[in-house]
Amino acid sequence: DKTHKIAVIAGDGIGTEVVPEGLRALEAAARRFDIRLEFEHFEFGSCDYYLEHGKMLPDDWFETLSGFDAIFYGAVGWPEKVPDHISLWGSLLQFRRHFDQYINLRPCRLMPGIKSPLADREPGDIDFYVVRENTEGEYSSIGGKIFEGTERETVMQETVMTRTGVDRVLKYAFELAQSRPRRKLTSATKSNGISITMPYWDERVKAMAGKYPDVSVDQFHIDILTANFVLHPDWFDVVVASNLFGDILSDLGPACTGTIGVAPSANINPEGKFPSLFEPVHGSAPDIAGKGIANPIGQIWCGAMMLEHLGYQEAGEAMVSAIERVLADDDKSALTPDLKGQGTTQSLGEKIAAAI
Amino acid sequence: DKTHKIAVIAGDGIGTEVVPEGLRALEAAARRFDIRLEFEHFEFGSCDYYLEHGKMLPDDWFETLSGFDAIFYGAVGWPEKVPDHISLWGSLLQFRRHFDQYINLRPCRLMPGIKSPLADREPGDIDFYVVRENTEGEYSSIGGKIFEGTERETVMQETVMTRTGVDRVLKYAFELAQSRPRRKLTSATKSNGISITMPYWDERVKAMAGKYPDVSVDQFHIDILTANFVLHPDWFDVVVASNLFGDILSDLGPACTGTIGVAPSANINPEGKFPSLFEPVHGSAPDIAGKGIANPIGQIWCGAMMLEHLGYQEAGEAMVSAIERVLADDDKSALTPDLKGQGTTQSLGEKIAAAI
Ligand SMILES: CC(C)[C@H](C(=O)O)[C@@H](O)C(=O)O
Ligand SMILES: CC(C)[C@H](C(=O)O)[C@@H](O)C(=O)O
Repeated sequence: DKTHKIAVIAGDGIGTEVVPEGLRALEAAARRFDIRLEFEHFEFGSCDYYLEHGKMLPDDWFETLSGFDAIFYGAVGWPEKVPDHISLWGSLLQFRRHFDQYINLRPCRLMPGIKSPLADREPGDIDFYVVRENTEGEYSSIGGKIFEGTERETVMQETVMTRTGVDRVLKYAFELAQSRPRRKLTSATKSNGISITMPYWDERVKAMAGKYPDVSVDQFHIDILTANFVLHPDWFDVVVASNLFGDILSDLGPACTGTIGVAPSANINPEGKFPSLFEPVHGSAPDIAGKGIANPIGQIWCGAMMLEHLGYQEAGEAMVSAIERVLADDDKSALTPDLKGQGTTQSLGEKIAAAI
Repeated sequence: DKTHKIAVIAGDGIGTEVVPEGLRALEAAARRFDIRLEFEHFEFGSCDYYLEHGKMLPDDWFETLSGFDAIFYGAVGWPEKVPDHISLWGSLLQFRRHFDQYINLRPCRLMPGIKSPLADREPGDIDFYVVRENTEGEYSSIGGKIFEGTERETVMQETVMTRTGVDRVLKYAFELAQSRPRRKLTSATKSNGISITMPYWDERVKAMAGKYPDVSVDQFHIDILTANFVLHPDWFDVVVASNLFGDILSDLGPACTGTIGVAPSANINPEGKFPSLFEPVHGSAPDIAGKGIANPIGQIWCGAMMLEHLGYQEAGEAMVSAIERVLADDDKSALTPDLKGQGTTQSLGEKIAAAI
């Protein structure tokens, strides 16, 4: 009965509004399942912190956060205050790299009461994970510009894949597929166009597949794969992808289920050597920030993923099921306006906490 | 009243079945609008040619095809016969590079009688173009492998953007936007993650926008842009993107309209210094090849784009309108099975030619 230390960074915009509801739900789950969680709050990792200190994080952020079991993040970024390439590269992307959170895991799931943009799909029809490589690939900072300011100006950027980096994300994805009833893995590639790195990716998928004979494997080029997310979302179980392709698929997937506004994202260091980070996909949403109407489900769902990561599968599932029961409930009065309710961030958070 | 010389390459699989219907429709349009077209057929650029000659194209392909005004291509690729990286890089991608077809243009349009996977969308709601850079960017062949076969194995591939390359595709896209009623251009970026090439892309978009004050411009990161294709396809008018992003968007767009099986793709050298190439997106479709049931609309739509490129706007529009009238017709008997008809490639081709 270990006490789990959780670093809480509310961050920017609606992050500060939804995080309290995420904590409320986590506390409800902790009570019910007898889990010991200890929260500590931090101001850094936000644009306001940057405006005051000239940096997104204090110099000792790595030591400070290393002692935690997980980071529970609200949102970061507010382009009118600080350009994204400063706020995001100065926080989120630092965490991913330095805490070696090499897995980005995102569930794509059709939920009751949430309208999908796709015709003729019901809850249960769509239920898959995107497993994204989260530290290398297309997101390298190697490259530069030559002949600057002239007609010959040329800009280059390197995509870098390592055997270590590719194999470990594949291993994680294969094991996830193994744990699910359908045992199916889909690899996102583009080896017909990106002719060096992507054939290498395919080669490693093939090698890894040999070790998991009970998982059925297929692959699609990213162009037709995005098409198939729309046309045949029921085909997918676990989809594994490089950093960029995973970034795309893990927004497109939740878009297809109508859940992009409530989707969670887990940045995981599977070995637990460093803290993993859980943040909703929606971001800081400057347009509705400060109004108390932001939907807290993404943040609560993040809490569920965090508990599952800490080893409490049942507690995580109970939180997701509470979300689904509240969404399916005929009484919509506590729901936020995006769900056609008349409620607030807090009223929806309270209702979900009560359901847990 | 120039005679336009068209090189016809049927290529692989259903390419050989749909091309004759494309030609039938072109001949009908040529008769009606008094256009002089001269067709010459070639065997190369197919997997069967490769199996016989050990190469996809004869050594003098460049000289042979340079004299033509356009290339009317069916489909290339048949992975069981020849790996894609040989067949595609040996034909299509050679044409794009050497004939400097730096624009890939693809219409995304909801058509009557074709079921869209999106809920609550009607013909007229979705009607936009994806303009894709077609010669540089992420599709470079620069890179390689180090520490091969060891745990330290590392693979790199360069993305290359030039001012010339970026500016010319932007110019084309801005001019296309200018010619359309909504005058709206959307740029696909990922400058928050791909931190060298994509900020450069944004910088050039900004510079170019200054020259087209009558075009309204916005931009989205590719992840949320794919989501918006599904959630808000009505937002878009002209979408301009790098080679890879354009590849993705130009499959996803037609998927959202249900037209991926009939979508055309134009590979254009706008200056007309080299022939442009028109081919449907569907590919060789080995699973239905040889059955006479392939839908020829993609190939016919390619013919329409070819006529527009050659300067016959009205004739191109007449061809598209003929397709739409046939699709909207209550009598479905001539339609191919994918359209829930009982017809054949030929019966549908004949009906559209008659409508022209
Ligand atoms: C076949 C492949 C190399 C090609 C591409 O990615 O360019 C295709 O997907 C296309 O869009 O024409
Ligand atoms: C903000 C951005 C750099 C980030 C990414 O592309 O990784 C975001 O889109 C995400 O998916 O978490």
